Amino acid sequence: MGLDEVSQKPHERLAAWLAEDMAAVNGLIRERMASKHAPRIPEVTAHLVEAGGKRLRPLLTLAAARLCGYEGPYHIHLAATVEFIHTATLLHDDVVDESHRRRGKPTANLLWDNKSSVLVGDYLFARSFQLMVETGSLRVMDILANASATISEGEVLQLTAAQDLRTTEDIYLQVVRGKTAALFAAATEVGGVVAGVPEAQVEALHAYGDALGIAFQIVDDLLDYGGVDAQIGKNTGDDFRERKLTLPVIKAVAQADAEERAFWQRVIEKGDQREGDLEQAHAIMSRHGAMEAARQDALRWVTVAREALGQLPEHPLREMLHDLADFVVERIA
Amino acid sequence: MGLDEVSQKPHERLAAWLAEDMAAVNGLIRERMASKHAPRIPEVTAHLVEAGGKRLRPLLTLAAARLCGYEGPYHIHLAATVEFIHTATLLHDDVVDESHRRRGKPTANLLWDNKSSVLVGDYLFARSFQLMVETGSLRVMDILANASATISEGEVLQLTAAQDLRTTEDIYLQVVRGKTAALFAAATEVGGVVAGVPEAQVEALHAYGDALGIAFQIVDDLLDYGGVDAQIGKNTGDDFRERKLTLPVIKAVAQADAEERAFWQRVIEKGDQREGDLEQAHAIMSRHGAMEAARQDALRWVTVAREALGQLPEHPLREMLHDLADFVVERIA
Repeated sequence: MGLDEVSQKPHERLAAWLAEDMAAVNGLIRERMASKHAPRIPEVTAHLVEAGGKRLRPLLTLAAARLCGYEGPYHIHLAATVEFIHTATLLHDDVVDESHRRRGKPTANLLWDNKSSVLVGDYLFARSFQLMVETGSLRVMDILANASATISEGEVLQLTAAQDLRTTEDIYLQVVRGKTAALFAAATEVGGVVAGVPEAQVEALHAYGDALGIAFQIVDDLLDYGGVDAQIGKNTGDDFRERKLTLPVIKAVAQADAEERAFWQRVIEKGDQREGDLEQAHAIMSRHGAMEAARQDALRWVTVAREALGQLPEHPLREMLHDLADFVVERIA
Repeated sequence: MGLDEVSQKPHERLAAWLAEDMAAVNGLIRERMASKHAPRIPEVTAHLVEAGGKRLRPLLTLAAARLCGYEGPYHIHLAATVEFIHTATLLHDDVVDESHRRRGKPTANLLWDNKSSVLVGDYLFARSFQLMVETGSLRVMDILANASATISEGEVLQLTAAQDLRTTEDIYLQVVRGKTAALFAAATEVGGVVAGVPEAQVEALHAYGDALGIAFQIVDDLLDYGGVDAQIGKNTGDDFRERKLTLPVIKAVAQADAEERAFWQRVIEKGDQREGDLEQAHAIMSRHGAMEAARQDALRWVTVAREALGQLPEHPLREMLHDLADFVVERIA
C-alpha cells in the first residue's frame, strides 16, 4: 500500500475501489433523472445530484453487494435507488427546515421555490420506486418501503419534538434512526439481500448501517454546534436557531440548574434568541461535558458497527467499512 | 329496481354495491394511518381521510376487481393504496397551490403547517408502498410506480405551464393525465391485474380509467370557472387566481383578438388581476364558446371510457361504471 492510499480517507478509498460501479450508478442517475415532459426536473435535481456530495449511501450499497460476492447487475439499480431517496428527502427537508445552504450551495427552494422542491422530490421518490421494481426482488422492496415509512415517521417526530425540553434521549434516537440510520441500514442490507447471503449476514449488514447512521448523525449534530462550517457545508448553529433538541442539548438540559433551565426555556421553548445565546448554549453544554458525553455515545455506536462486520467475510471492502466507522467520529477529533 | 335506486347517483350505487369491501378498506386505512411514534400523523390525515370524500379511486379499484370476478383479499390493499396515494398528493398539492379550502374544510397546511403537509404526505406514500408490497405482485408495483412518476411529472409540468399563454391543448392533456388520469387508470388497471384477467381486459380497464380521469378533470376545470362552489367544495376562480392554463382558457386564448390577448397577458402572464377580471375572463370564454367546446371534449372522453367497457364481462358493476362516465359530465349540465 503506497503513501497515497494510506493518506486517503475511508470513503475516498471506497470510492476508488468501487469507481467502475460508481460510474455506472452515476450514469443511471443521470438517465433516470431526465424527464421528457418536465424539463424543470433535471434542472432542480442536477443542482443537488451534481453538487459533489460524497455519495456515501450508494457506496454503502455497492460495498455491501461486492463484499458479499455479488456479480449481477442490480446493485447499480439499488445504489441509484438509495441516492434518489436521499436526494428526495433533502429536497423535502429544504422545504421543511427553511435551511439556507446544503452542500455549500443555495438550497433548491431558494433557487426555485417550495413547489418545485416538493414535486421534484416526489418525482425522485417515484423514480426510485421504478428502479427497485426493476430488480424484481420483493424482499428489497419490502426493506425500502419500511425504511421510507421510518424516515417520514422520524421527520414528523422531529417536528413535534422540536422546541420541547421534555424530549428524551430515547426520542432523539428514534428521530435519528428516521432521519439518517434507516436509509444507511437499508442501503447496506439490500446489498446483502441482492447478493443472496445467509440471513445472519443480512442482519449484520443492517446492524452495521444502523449503527453507522446513528454515529454519523450524532456527530453531525455535534458539528452543528462545533463551528466547522467549511467541513460539512452547513451553517453552524442551524439546529439551535431551529430549536431542535439534539443529543448534547438533551444531555445539558438533564443537568441544568434553575438558571440554565430558564435559559433553555427562553431560547428553545419560547424561541426568544439574542446575540451571544449560541455561545452561551455552547458554554453550558461544555460545562456539563455534554459534548464529550455525546461523542462517547457516538463512539459506542461505532463499536457496534465494527462488531457487526465480524459476521461478514474477510475482504478489503470490509476493512474500508471498518475504517469508515472510525472516521465518522474522527471528524470531530 | 326501486325508486330509491333510480334516484341514486352512480358513485352512490357503486358505494352501496361495494359497501362491505369499502368498510374493509376504511378499516385498513385507519389501521395503517396510525403511527406509534408520531401521533401528529393520524391527526393530520384523519382530517383528510375522514372528511367525507367520495372515495372514488378506491371504489374504482374494488369495482374493477369484482367485475373481473376477483375473490381474493388483495383488492382491499390496492384500494387503500390508491386512496393513500391520492391523499398524499392532496397534502403535497396543498403546499403547492396555496389553496385555502379542500373538500369544504380548511386545508391541512392552514390547520397545521407546510412542514406537516410535506412529511405526512411522504408518510402516506411510504405506507401505500408497504401495502402494495404485501400484495406480492410485481406487476401491480410496476403499474403504481409508473403512475407515481406520471403524477409528479404532470404536477411539475403544470408548474412550468402556468402563466404561459403558449401552453397548448397537448400540454394540458399531459398535465391532466398526470394530475388525475394516471391514478384513475392505475386504480382500475390494478383491479384487473389482481383478478388475473386477460391482457385485453387489463388494457380496457386502463383505457376506461384514463378517459374517465381526463373527462373528470376537464369538468373540474370548467367548474372552477362555473361558480358552483358548494357542489365541489373548492373556491370558484382558484385556477384563474393561480394563473393556470386550463382547457377553456387555452381555447379562448387561441381565438383571442388583440384586445383579448392583452387581457390574457395582463391577468395570466403578468398576474395583474383586478376586480371584475374573473367575470371578464368568463365573458370572453363564453363569447368564443370555449366552455362549451371544453364540455364537448369531455363528452368525447366519456365516449372513449364507455367504449372501453365493451371489452369487459357483463356485470351490474359494468353498468354502474358506464353510468359513472356519463355522470362525470352531467355535473355541469
